[in-house]
Amino acid sequence: MLEIFLIFVAAKLFGQVAEWLRQPAIVGELVAGVVIGPAALGWIHLGEVQQTLAELGVVFLLFGVGLETRFSELRSVGKISSSVAALGVAIPFALGWGAMTVLNYDRAASLFTGTALVATSVGVTAAVLAAKGRLGGRAGRTVLGAAVIDDILGLVLLAVVSGTVVGTLDAGRVVATIVTAIGFVAFLAVAGTRFMRRFPEVLDRLLPDRSPLAVALIICLGLSALAAEIGLAAIIGAFMAGMVLAETRERYAFDRSLQPVNELLVPFFFVVTGAQIKLSAFSSARLVLLTGLLTLLAVVGKVAAGMIGARSLGRREALIVGVGMTPRGEVGVIVATLGLSSGTIGPSLYSVIVAVSVATTLFAAPLLSRLSEGLPDRNTPEKVR
Amino acid sequence: MLEIFLIFVAAKLFGQVAEWLRQPAIVGELVAGVVIGPAALGWIHLGEVQQTLAELGVVFLLFGVGLETRFSELRSVGKISSSVAALGVAIPFALGWGAMTVLNYDRAASLFTGTALVATSVGVTAAVLAAKGRLGGRAGRTVLGAAVIDDILGLVLLAVVSGTVVGTLDAGRVVATIVTAIGFVAFLAVAGTRFMRRFPEVLDRLLPDRSPLAVALIICLGLSALAAEIGLAAIIGAFMAGMVLAETRERYAFDRSLQPVNELLVPFFFVVTGAQIKLSAFSSARLVLLTGLLTLLAVVGKVAAGMIGARSLGRREALIVGVGMTPRGEVGVIVATLGLSSGTIGPSLYSVIVAVSVATTLFAAPLLSRLSEGLPDRNTPEKVR
Repeated sequence: MLEIFLIFVAAKLFGQVAEWLRQPAIVGELVAGVVIGPAALGWIHLGEVQQTLAELGVVFLLFGVGLETRFSELRSVGKISSSVAALGVAIPFALGWGAMTVLNYDRAASLFTGTALVATSVGVTAAVLAAKGRLGGRAGRTVLGAAVIDDILGLVLLAVVSGTVVGTLDAGRVVATIVTAIGFVAFLAVAGTRFMRRFPEVLDRLLPDRSPLAVALIICLGLSALAAEIGLAAIIGAFMAGMVLAETRERYAFDRSLQPVNELLVPFFFVVTGAQIKLSAFSSARLVLLTGLLTLLAVVGKVAAGMIGARSLGRREALIVGVGMTPRGEVGVIVATLGLSSGTIGPSLYSVIVAVSVATTLFAAPLLSRLSEGLPDRNTPEKVR
Repeated sequence: MLEIFLIFVAAKLFGQVAEWLRQPAIVGELVAGVVIGPAALGWIHLGEVQQTLAELGVVFLLFGVGLETRFSELRSVGKISSSVAALGVAIPFALGWGAMTVLNYDRAASLFTGTALVATSVGVTAAVLAAKGRLGGRAGRTVLGAAVIDDILGLVLLAVVSGTVVGTLDAGRVVATIVTAIGFVAFLAVAGTRFMRRFPEVLDRLLPDRSPLAVALIICLGLSALAAEIGLAAIIGAFMAGMVLAETRERYAFDRSLQPVNELLVPFFFVVTGAQIKLSAFSSARLVLLTGLLTLLAVVGKVAAGMIGARSLGRREALIVGVGMTPRGEVGVIVATLGLSSGTIGPSLYSVIVAVSVATTLFAAPLLSRLSEGLPDRNTPEKVR
């Protein structure tokens, strides 16, 4: 209980300080994690409980984002999203792989580092854009669509790279991964949303004496667990659940009900993300330089992907898309953990990748907040949090 | 994620089935825990994550109960509550101790068993009464007040008994425990509520850019953690936090905001409570008989305490008070765990005490629900859940 209290109060205090400094509250919550986490004060540790609360936080955050997203709106930016996602996988992977190869790391470690630079963690971006009321703008929709496609491509890349590295690359399994992931997303996006539009009363009928919110939470948790089981990020399942339920009559009621839940749980995600950072990434000048270089490449790769892939939106919005795809967060950490546990990368490279993940997030959040001020199409006035 | 989903969906499904059978949903959620828990299907285990979610659930449940409680209302039934609490500690302790001594258990095990039968877990009762809209009735207020006093007395008894058993009974420390516990509760009840009544705008001022809900959650989590630190149940801190905030202008807003949070978290408390039950309590006829006997004594002790202590409320309401004090739940389990870890009780007596805790809860919930139907003073129409 004490640690839960500390995480929560630190998040809210640092969030308040961030707003006084005219920064998004999220930056304060990330910094709170760095400060009270193991790397600095050490008031909290990162056990199973903290990780689970953080995961629940980001799951409900993306569920809320999904509730404000209509599939038809995503489809209208589908081409731009696809090219942003494809370039956003290809460029950072090539940059990371290339840099590590030039620096004389072995082939396996270089491939893994490149893969860790690929995955976008869309939670931070979604929270910043929602706080500014810009989630429904063209740039916001492009980022959301690209993040879903990005996660599928990242999953495929991870399957190929770890198969290649361990020497058990099985074409059949890679194809199965691709088909399952695309099938899951496409089925929910097309059939799920259409079903809900046709039968809007189905939620009331399922568990007549329970509230519709209970059914909504069951769908959210179920699709998140299912997405995690097939190897996608749980948040993709939560986002799809939200998008399906966005077609129901109760969407605004769900959105309102979700706000106090997110007020409670989302801070755990940001604080735990900040707290991931490891001191050992700064134990030698060489590692600090490597962290700086990889962070630079990670930022440049995604910004370039956004500027090129979304150039039809105009320079400012294309830049928002690129910066919006920059945060790596927990997905990069998951890839790094896989690399560490398979022995492909050592503990120092592991801490560097984790530091890069946190650094990209700390870089992107305030910049994104600045960029999205004063844009014309402010068309989602509701806040997710 | 998968286990969290399973717990949640099982709770809601069994809750629905219970309502079809005209039982309170809570009974369904408890049974869900027994069924999917380690004793039966084994689909979920009881790790740190599950326990923490359960604890958060009951903390916010009691926070919500506190928000609907005014200190002045509790004070008006203060004398009745005190005698119910005192009798409810003395009678079950004497019965448990006596029975175990007659059955030739050693002195330490008998004392510990008696102590484990003392602590009331008010979460189940609060949920049942709130669902029936009777939390604000005289019986409801008496149970709430008695539960707070009961927890203090139970804490003191535990300090004395474990001190006696381990042979390190330190009168100074027992007095310090008493003073701290009473000081904590009295300070919040008297000074806390008065302060909030005088300065209702203080919540808005503390963190001006954060929502008042954030401040309320900080107060709830902080007082829960503090209560746990001084040895009281965390839920007592949460209840006191709610009672203090019940004096603010935002009390209805908090109450509304808390409903979706509780919709999500409270089921974890009931499912995990049900899942505590151990198969080994039924491994021999002797243990089954012992479980039955202690359950009977645990029920009789509390019902007698209610009937005698609250006799001025009339027979029906006094019975509600007695049955309302019957559920043991997590507090009995905590005492049993202390006894097990100190070597005072063996693993089979431990499983018996856990089974008694779950059995008293399964017994009390449906009976309480029946009893509170058709009572005249239905004066809190809002549901906590």
